[in-house]
Amino acid sequence: MESTSGFPEAIHLPKGFSFSATKAGIKVSGRADLALATTPSGATAAALFTKNRVIAAPLIVGKASLAKTKGYVSAVIVNAGNANCATGKAGVTACQDVCRETAKALGIKVEEVFPSSTGIIGVPLPQEKIIASLSGLIANREAGREGVKQFAGAIMTTDLRPKIASVRVKASKSEFSLLGIAKGSGMIHPQMATMLVYLFTDLSAAAGDLQRLLKAACDQTFNCISVDGDTSTNDTLLLLANGQSGVRLKDSGVAKKFADALLTVCQSLALQVVSDGEGVKHVISLYIEQAKSREEAMLVAKSIAHSPLVKTAWAGADPNWGRILAAMGYSGAPIETEKVEIWIARQKVFGQGVVYKFNEMEAHRALAQPSCDVRVRLGRGNSSVLFYTTDLTAEYVHINADYST
Amino acid sequence: MESTSGFPEAIHLPKGFSFSATKAGIKVSGRADLALATTPSGATAAALFTKNRVIAAPLIVGKASLAKTKGYVSAVIVNAGNANCATGKAGVTACQDVCRETAKALGIKVEEVFPSSTGIIGVPLPQEKIIASLSGLIANREAGREGVKQFAGAIMTTDLRPKIASVRVKASKSEFSLLGIAKGSGMIHPQMATMLVYLFTDLSAAAGDLQRLLKAACDQTFNCISVDGDTSTNDTLLLLANGQSGVRLKDSGVAKKFADALLTVCQSLALQVVSDGEGVKHVISLYIEQAKSREEAMLVAKSIAHSPLVKTAWAGADPNWGRILAAMGYSGAPIETEKVEIWIARQKVFGQGVVYKFNEMEAHRALAQPSCDVRVRLGRGNSSVLFYTTDLTAEYVHINADYST
Repeated sequence: MESTSGFPEAIHLPKGFSFSATKAGIKVSGRADLALATTPSGATAAALFTKNRVIAAPLIVGKASLAKTKGYVSAVIVNAGNANCATGKAGVTACQDVCRETAKALGIKVEEVFPSSTGIIGVPLPQEKIIASLSGLIANREAGREGVKQFAGAIMTTDLRPKIASVRVKASKSEFSLLGIAKGSGMIHPQMATMLVYLFTDLSAAAGDLQRLLKAACDQTFNCISVDGDTSTNDTLLLLANGQSGVRLKDSGVAKKFADALLTVCQSLALQVVSDGEGVKHVISLYIEQAKSREEAMLVAKSIAHSPLVKTAWAGADPNWGRILAAMGYSGAPIETEKVEIWIARQKVFGQGVVYKFNEMEAHRALAQPSCDVRVRLGRGNSSVLFYTTDLTAEYVHINADYST
Repeated sequence: MESTSGFPEAIHLPKGFSFSATKAGIKVSGRADLALATTPSGATAAALFTKNRVIAAPLIVGKASLAKTKGYVSAVIVNAGNANCATGKAGVTACQDVCRETAKALGIKVEEVFPSSTGIIGVPLPQEKIIASLSGLIANREAGREGVKQFAGAIMTTDLRPKIASVRVKASKSEFSLLGIAKGSGMIHPQMATMLVYLFTDLSAAAGDLQRLLKAACDQTFNCISVDGDTSTNDTLLLLANGQSGVRLKDSGVAKKFADALLTVCQSLALQVVSDGEGVKHVISLYIEQAKSREEAMLVAKSIAHSPLVKTAWAGADPNWGRILAAMGYSGAPIETEKVEIWIARQKVFGQGVVYKFNEMEAHRALAQPSCDVRVRLGRGNSSVLFYTTDLTAEYVHINADYST
């Protein structure tokens, strides 16, 4: 399996998908803010959405369309600069209008158009700007690297970098590709929202199988990252499979290879999202080990990853194991202090209920790197989880405290 | 009912309690760090402790003593500068040594001594320094305002201000007093921990009744505050009743008056703790109303109060209702967006699923005050909660990110 990530020279392109982007005038900055992906043959589809109870209009519309088609999508239309959230019934109507006009222009059914929005909350979606831009957007589609690059750039809001990952896998005497494009600074900017992830493959697969595989990959990747613990109202993860490679999921050995490919691409995108978090100076790979269950490991991981005291210590590269231990203690997991071990980089700093003699300067230097491993062993079982998280910096506060209205 | 709070000229002193403090040399700053409160007649006692699974040695020892005496305490010994947490079995032994020597010097049983510690985690308790200071501490006890002031100062760690509240209540043809002393910056400083609250009354009451009343007051006050959501390993709330006023809880009408007094003193101390939170510039009184249950209201309150995005918006006095709505959405409560109303100070800013036209500058000015009301109505029922919380400032990050080892 070959894989690339970031903004690579080589992107492994799945067959039969086209991409484009344009400036519709939604972003205040005037940058590209409308993106389109199409596959004329249509694709089976799976999707996961935010668990936030407040959900944006495009999620309401997208869910209804997927239910109607039983998981079939021919086009994805995404705008940035406006989340179309907390916009009431008018927001749903605006989204439906965009989908209808997109479908009309492409000659497909309205429910085959999957919509997304990201940006400011509570402002009416300027659908007339989107609809006026559709013909140019459709005319400029292309299947190459340039189209992917444009799509990835147009869906950004507070992101500093576009997020792309791709793999090509030999399978069943042929090969298939999986391409992922994401946006998200891992948090919400002044009324800006959302992580959006689109996965495109030329594999052939049933929608139900895609859904199962997508859920499994998401649990191990996007559900294991945190910048500030705030969950957006618009989070969307979409996987499309158009079958153009001729490789089928049900062919011998393909399911395992595709699951691996999904994990590789999702892991890469998840790490790109965390690394691009607002104000982030340090990415921490948090290994929670020897838990009784995966759920227990996740409780501990989230409690540590969401603790402002732990995160500010990391901002200062402070090997402060006391805060980690305290956050474990209120995680809800039945922590047995005497069995706990805490490691920072390659040093054990706490074990058997007391601090270990460790080289503090070495631990400080390790935490001062752009990324560092922190390992917690619970001594209770065999489950583990790898969770990516970040520090909490004064820059994060400045970015999010600036009163901009 | 007369009440005072902060560092008032008049402190309502319950009869029969004496206080003192001294410099035992535990704090690096050299300030007073050892405090003693005694009541020669002994007192019935109730206590509540941190729910953190990692608990410090004095909590282990204190709980065991209270169980042995069925709620009876004659002396409280508190050190600051060392939390005696994550110190293993040696920490428990050190705490027991301190209690034994204190009991010996006072001529009481070891289990009548209630111990507390607050300060750095993971460093062995210098019990020899404490024990060497006991005779002077005992000799200098006094029942007046000066003793209370010394006690309140000595238990401080990162606190900027001592925290005292007191009431005197006419009841049953006589009167009783309730005095509260607290410490806590609402969070943990570099390996510093803990909220400690001591309540002293000259009322006469059974330990079981005290426990019930203390729990009720705590639920409405200390359990309704948050600075950063980090829960200490040493949190302790202790209530002593020595009966010296001659007023009995079971006398006609006294129970209600004492419950009110407890609520008044605890509310005042809770607000003092929040206001003194590290880096806090703005205190928010968060009213959650029209919830189906108190539990539902608390879920929503905690989700808003712990959201870094909401808290950084408050730091900038930004009337950003979108972040409040998003935090409600992931609270776990079944939010019905169309029924939600959000108010900032005196203006409704969101309702019926959409933003209200409101005066943004007026909302900004209200949030720029040292304290401001934010009101959220769920439209689901009749339960409500008042939760005190704070902004999240760059100063908070600086305080907690400084690498000090």
